[in-house]
Amino acid sequence: MTQKLSGIAASNGIAIAKAFRLENPELIVKKTSISNINAELARFDSAMAQSKSELETIKAQTAQQMNDEEAAIFSAHLLVLSDPELLGPITDKIKSENVNAEFALQETANMFIGLFESMDNEYMKERAADIRDVTKRVLAHLLGVSIQSPSMIKDEVIIIAEDLTPSDTVQLNPHFVKGFITDIGGRTSHSAILARTLEIPAVVGAKTVMSTIQNGMIVIVDGLDGDIIVNPDTETIARYKEKKASYELQKSEWATLKNEATITSDGHHVELGANIGTPKDVVGVLEHGGEAIGLYRTEFLYMGRNQFPTEEEQFEAYSSVLKQMDDKPTVVRTLDIGGDKELSYLQLPKEMNPFLGLRAIRLCLEMEDMFRTQLRALLRASVHGNLKIMFPMIATLEEFRQAKTLFLEEKAKLKEEHIEVSNTIEVGIMVEIPSTAVMADIFAKEVDFFSIGTNDLIQYTMAADRMNERVSYLYQPFNPAILRLVKNVIDASHKEGKWTGMCGEMAGDEIAIPILLGLGLDEFSMSASSILKARSQIKKLSKVEMESHTDAILSLSTSDEVESYVRALTTK
Amino acid sequence: MTQKLSGIAASNGIAIAKAFRLENPELIVKKTSISNINAELARFDSAMAQSKSELETIKAQTAQQMNDEEAAIFSAHLLVLSDPELLGPITDKIKSENVNAEFALQETANMFIGLFESMDNEYMKERAADIRDVTKRVLAHLLGVSIQSPSMIKDEVIIIAEDLTPSDTVQLNPHFVKGFITDIGGRTSHSAILARTLEIPAVVGAKTVMSTIQNGMIVIVDGLDGDIIVNPDTETIARYKEKKASYELQKSEWATLKNEATITSDGHHVELGANIGTPKDVVGVLEHGGEAIGLYRTEFLYMGRNQFPTEEEQFEAYSSVLKQMDDKPTVVRTLDIGGDKELSYLQLPKEMNPFLGLRAIRLCLEMEDMFRTQLRALLRASVHGNLKIMFPMIATLEEFRQAKTLFLEEKAKLKEEHIEVSNTIEVGIMVEIPSTAVMADIFAKEVDFFSIGTNDLIQYTMAADRMNERVSYLYQPFNPAILRLVKNVIDASHKEGKWTGMCGEMAGDEIAIPILLGLGLDEFSMSASSILKARSQIKKLSKVEMESHTDAILSLSTSDEVESYVRALTTK
Repeated sequence: MTQKLSGIAASNGIAIAKAFRLENPELIVKKTSISNINAELARFDSAMAQSKSELETIKAQTAQQMNDEEAAIFSAHLLVLSDPELLGPITDKIKSENVNAEFALQETANMFIGLFESMDNEYMKERAADIRDVTKRVLAHLLGVSIQSPSMIKDEVIIIAEDLTPSDTVQLNPHFVKGFITDIGGRTSHSAILARTLEIPAVVGAKTVMSTIQNGMIVIVDGLDGDIIVNPDTETIARYKEKKASYELQKSEWATLKNEATITSDGHHVELGANIGTPKDVVGVLEHGGEAIGLYRTEFLYMGRNQFPTEEEQFEAYSSVLKQMDDKPTVVRTLDIGGDKELSYLQLPKEMNPFLGLRAIRLCLEMEDMFRTQLRALLRASVHGNLKIMFPMIATLEEFRQAKTLFLEEKAKLKEEHIEVSNTIEVGIMVEIPSTAVMADIFAKEVDFFSIGTNDLIQYTMAADRMNERVSYLYQPFNPAILRLVKNVIDASHKEGKWTGMCGEMAGDEIAIPILLGLGLDEFSMSASSILKARSQIKKLSKVEMESHTDAILSLSTSDEVESYVRALTTK
Repeated sequence: MTQKLSGIAASNGIAIAKAFRLENPELIVKKTSISNINAELARFDSAMAQSKSELETIKAQTAQQMNDEEAAIFSAHLLVLSDPELLGPITDKIKSENVNAEFALQETANMFIGLFESMDNEYMKERAADIRDVTKRVLAHLLGVSIQSPSMIKDEVIIIAEDLTPSDTVQLNPHFVKGFITDIGGRTSHSAILARTLEIPAVVGAKTVMSTIQNGMIVIVDGLDGDIIVNPDTETIARYKEKKASYELQKSEWATLKNEATITSDGHHVELGANIGTPKDVVGVLEHGGEAIGLYRTEFLYMGRNQFPTEEEQFEAYSSVLKQMDDKPTVVRTLDIGGDKELSYLQLPKEMNPFLGLRAIRLCLEMEDMFRTQLRALLRASVHGNLKIMFPMIATLEEFRQAKTLFLEEKAKLKEEHIEVSNTIEVGIMVEIPSTAVMADIFAKEVDFFSIGTNDLIQYTMAADRMNERVSYLYQPFNPAILRLVKNVIDASHKEGKWTGMCGEMAGDEIAIPILLGLGLDEFSMSASSILKARSQIKKLSKVEMESHTDAILSLSTSDEVESYVRALTTK
């Protein structure tokens, strides 16, 4: 019987295929006394060695098929496997308590998992997840149980799972895995983001799929509307095949826009850029017709490692991006670490409110040497393309001046050393703190450009943690307060002959785009896969018409009113 | 030999007296085996009973001499002493391990203290401090060691201590304790706040006083400038006596202003109100010539208890304040709990960024029954004075409308029940979230008044946790972004014929007052002890002159520039 379920649309597209349940085997550990300690230790070592070699293989595959950022997950897992703080207690336990390796491993791991999870710190919670993932792998080897791995799927299927771990998601082969549905997770969970990168249709947070869908059942995933059809009848299959065809037709129409400029119906040009994390991402940007990189997040260079990247490593990464972009504008954001983003080799004190703490430029100005190294690497790479640099989390003019001074000092030093640097590097700031949005007129006199980071700007303006589900109703991109601040920033930049971009999720939103066009936004930076759709939308819009609605929109009272107003405009 | 030290000026005034060192005795616990378990349990019970009776006495004294808020500290201590989760393990340990009570107590207490302190949660940390304080008391009884208590001081002294615990501070008798100096703590620590309430000069965070000052040495505490003079010579004593006399003269001049209205040199009237926490605080407000209560924090009614206060208890408290204020405006803020303020009987989930989480009105709208009870109590009390109600942490118009609806519903119900309520209660909001400051024009059409809560407004606008020392440089009341938002709020209210007050620390600041006067602020609410000084300052200022500087001030670039500008103005 046909059954319809629904969840959160996490990645566009429609897929129809057999269900494949990805299940976690039950790993039952019993405590036993052992007589031969050395044999038990050898058994433990062997399980560890097998796990390590598996992880090395997956890591290498991932680096090749995906990118370094994803591969970093497995570097973290490998680090767990060689962590003496974890291994010491396990072997001690085997030796001193004469217990079996499974029991010693599980007891010790649970102790660490409990400890890390009890800390109110996202980084430590991730460490707990890493230990859980790795422990499962080693336990399976000790118990002789095999773990299902998505990489072994050699049939066209739709994966049904409670959740996908990072190690699951990076093994998805889009040739066989046509889509996936999970019971938990949200639009911004790791697996959802990855599905969009791989362009696999996905619905997450569906709650009941594991209890409803059996292996081999035919399933339709509608990643456009978040719908799931189980055991569809012929008529339903036909209807969804048509929807799929029309979606794909639209995608192919979008593809024809790849080499076109983004020009509104009344002849106004805006720049459509992409947000990237690693040099490998540039391929996707160019494939999707990106005119620029509006945000290169340099954090990933610093992650999944044991120490800071050297100036040389950074120079290589930045140069690679600039060369691939071939003189197209490339905006690099300097290190934005701290808050929820931590580095294992940088022990920052715990903060009660990390989003209101020592992060991004605040931390960089304290760790001047680290920051100078990044600036030197950027300056040296600048001769290879069209580099623009921006500082994140600027709250006061003094912070900008201080960062700019360090930039100029490093530039002067390089010139003294007769190292070539570009003289046309624009230096701008992220506008993501309310004070800076309010003071945009003052900043506009000194910065070369603004890039509005809406994710943070919204959370601070509304005083609501965007990761906290209990206040997520306050994460309102269309609250008129946000739009007024955005207008203030754009107007201030234009008054001084500067430009304003936007690199938050809002820049690619179809309700936001007409508003932002009317407000005069110069550059929209989004995930590469959204660019062509946005270009198609913008080409049909008139800037003058959108401008004529700006005053009315900014006088509305609530976020809902704004959404309704724009929907009425665009569907009329 | 005369020696000069310095620290943080925590409470105004100058005192000259002998030093009295308040030292913590060392409580050394040895593990011993006991033979008579019942005798040991009896010994433990007796120490517990002595501690309880001591705490009951201190609590009663405190409630009488100070107020209920301070007494609540001892309610929390008494709760610890009857907590089965703490007592169970101790008696179990004595019984099963045959150990002495001291050891069982210390081991168990340390376990809980360690556990609570490792949690990244201010409330749990306070619980840890409570357990530490109580354990010390019980241990001292078990060991037969006496703990120094400030209440036993019967000589004029200046207390020298590493730090003052809550139980120390509430026992200070201003008749004998002329001042105090501590090595640790800041201007907003509990003991500093209390010193200002008691009007005892104090310097905190002096770092080296315990290692420098011996019992009986003559010490001068200068709480105006944060200076400490040890062993002053005759000439120095004379100089400080003069400074003390001139400060006291100034205070007595201020006292003459007690019954005067607050009118600028050019005839403009503003209202000077006080922030209070409990009905007992009203006495101080009236003594210091307060024209209003600008902020009655109702949280204290909910604290140091096992359950929510009943409607009747709340009615009593609100009525008492209104009656004492005798028709002077009294602004009551509805419950602002959550974030860093928690209730032991309300288990809220831990949040990663509590300041950006489910707190204040957000929580009240979720816990509708609790909120309705408070609104009913307020409505019933409204006939006893000039009540105004305000909702904290309003971020969107929908939240205000929802809260206002509940208010109107409860009002209608009371009328149906033929219970008398005032028909002139103003209903306003706190402006402490940037979105609300930006949207003030929209809010002004629906609210009766605004009260700007600068402490939170600054922290959200600058995206910097005001409790986090590492980013405290960003807590900038004079950042032009803050002043622009304040202006936006005041202008919007006046345009709709409404009024704006301010109840953050900024309202009593002598640099802020001239600016706020120029911006047109209608009501300034501060700690009662600052009112007369503020009145004296405002009477000398011209509103028209301050207005003429507003544009110049709002065009400045940085907080430092604003401070310098105003200092130059006021000292010229």
